[in-house]
Amino acid sequence: MAKAYYSTVFQQPAQEVWEIIRDFNNYPVWVGGAGESRIEDDKSGDAVGAVRSVLYRARNIRQRLLALSDVERVQTYEFCGAPSLPVEGFSATLRVTPVIDGDRSFVEWWANFDCEPGLRDELTATLGGWFAQWLESLRGTLDRRVPGETASVNE
Amino acid sequence: MAKAYYSTVFQQPAQEVWEIIRDFNNYPVWVGGAGESRIEDDKSGDAVGAVRSVLYRARNIRQRLLALSDVERVQTYEFCGAPSLPVEGFSATLRVTPVIDGDRSFVEWWANFDCEPGLRDELTATLGGWFAQWLESLRGTLDRRVPGETASVNE
Amino acid sequence: MAKAYYSTVFQQPAQEVWEIIRDFNNYPVWVGGAGESRIEDDKSGDAVGAVRSVLYRARNIRQRLLALSDVERVQTYEFCGAPSLPVEGFSATLRVTPVIDGDRSFVEWWANFDCEPGLRDELTATLGGWFAQWLESLRGTLDRRVPGETASVNE
Amino acid sequence: MAKAYYSTVFQQPAQEVWEIIRDFNNYPVWVGGAGESRIEDDKSGDAVGAVRSVLYRARNIRQRLLALSDVERVQTYEFCGAPSLPVEGFSATLRVTPVIDGDRSFVEWWANFDCEPGLRDELTATLGGWFAQWLESLRGTLDRRVPGETASVNE
Repeated sequence: MAKAYYSTVFQQPAQEVWEIIRDFNNYPVWVGGAGESRIEDDKSGDAVGAVRSVLYRARNIRQRLLALSDVERVQTYEFCGAPSLPVEGFSATLRVTPVIDGDRSFVEWWANFDCEPGLRDELTATLGGWFAQWLESLRGTLDRRVPGETASVNE
Repeated sequence: MAKAYYSTVFQQPAQEVWEIIRDFNNYPVWVGGAGESRIEDDKSGDAVGAVRSVLYRARNIRQRLLALSDVERVQTYEFCGAPSLPVEGFSATLRVTPVIDGDRSFVEWWANFDCEPGLRDELTATLGGWFAQWLESLRGTLDRRVPGETASVNE
Repeated sequence: MAKAYYSTVFQQPAQEVWEIIRDFNNYPVWVGGAGESRIEDDKSGDAVGAVRSVLYRARNIRQRLLALSDVERVQTYEFCGAPSLPVEGFSATLRVTPVIDGDRSFVEWWANFDCEPGLRDELTATLGGWFAQWLESLRGTLDRRVPGETASVNE
Repeated sequence: MAKAYYSTVFQQPAQEVWEIIRDFNNYPVWVGGAGESRIEDDKSGDAVGAVRSVLYRARNIRQRLLALSDVERVQTYEFCGAPSLPVEGFSATLRVTPVIDGDRSFVEWWANFDCEPGLRDELTATLGGWFAQWLESLRGTLDRRVPGETASVNE
């Protein structure tokens, strides 16, 4: 099973990190390079099955929310249509877990997918690198926040 | 950890069972004894965080959707306010898994909760019995359906 | 992610089914076609990390136990060396869950693996078919047992 | 559901931390205050079902290994006989997850149990505090190690 995986530690509590990630329409708030995002069919960003249509580096991508848990702070999504890499059966998951020691959070982002065996190592590294980059972008967003500021893209 | 658990096998495929359960507002469609149900604050029945307000045997109960997964066909919810039994920290989960042999489904319903130790066995039995009864009610709903009929309470 | 999956329902309680499966050296007891099996390095059949060396249809295969849980009745293993099919990153899991309704059990067997994309559907079907066949062989073993009979290959 | 939970971050890679924890007989190596430990019935420390008999602060405690996974680096155990606190249905789990950023590890220790409702907060705090203390003791063991040193109590 091809799996790309990245994880890191944030100084912010798990709940604070989760509040930004959980809204599936919040992508442009914390992913550098992401432009306009909207949820299709008037769904809310916490509705399982919602499709977000995002402009990412001048390219439109569409992704569907497959699972959302406020208990385990987990979000799983897939691509609608072909993803930008030569992979099939792709789904990705973000999870935020409390680090009690220091009231911080442990943040994981991984993807499962199928691909040509010869491309597996390269694709795994590429995806892992993207997850790292986007989580650094999220870290920047969190570090710049004024305490008490709300997270939503809509405000 | 006090845990009430019930599980059974349905003749219908997992996807068919899941389509009825997954809409958090669909309760009255398949739970015998449940009357009017509505989701508060104009949320949809697949929005995590949605609160359903249901009339069950002439009593109003409110429950919040905590997690929903179309990948594992899982739904988790809790009570808003005090539940009808003397329990605390209650959350319940429904899961539907395919039985490949015969294209059937394996349906589980469990709850975790805290209570007085002396009441644990009784409460576990009571809850397990309710889950059994409601799943029999769901079985009846499924068996009576005309093939192709839609599942929603709103149609 | 390529995944082969098979599941079925047994008439026996989960604990009775699990007692046969959980000993990693018990393979020849319930898998038709499996001949002599032994655990290498004098380990026991419930030691995580144990390697079983089995004669299956005149061919020697070696598999390592990666995880064992008496809580969830789950066993995960991988191949040592190349598996008999053109797959990589293969690991397989067996799980036994109680069906409270009728005191039966729900038995699942799945494998995750990587392969050439063009072979994925065929390999998934082949593996699923093998899991079905071996679980039918386990069903036969269970149905033929005299009540109270022990499960071990060593007795 | 009463749950005590503690988690922290170690500077060492997940595999290095896991190698110490996974042997159920290794307790005295890394838990300060634990004296002689032995596994009953000549089982190995990685055999699921193994019972360790440990002298902890001049008191004998016996614990049974319920699950072990080298895939998820997870260990679950329960008490044989009454635990030292007024709890029932106690089981505890240790998990080690890689922190890719910095090649560190995220270490969690939690317990599920039942108790008198009035004691729940106190017991949850007490157990969480013990897990914190024992993980600090593990951290000290890891920090003092000479690179390449083996982890086993038996060497």
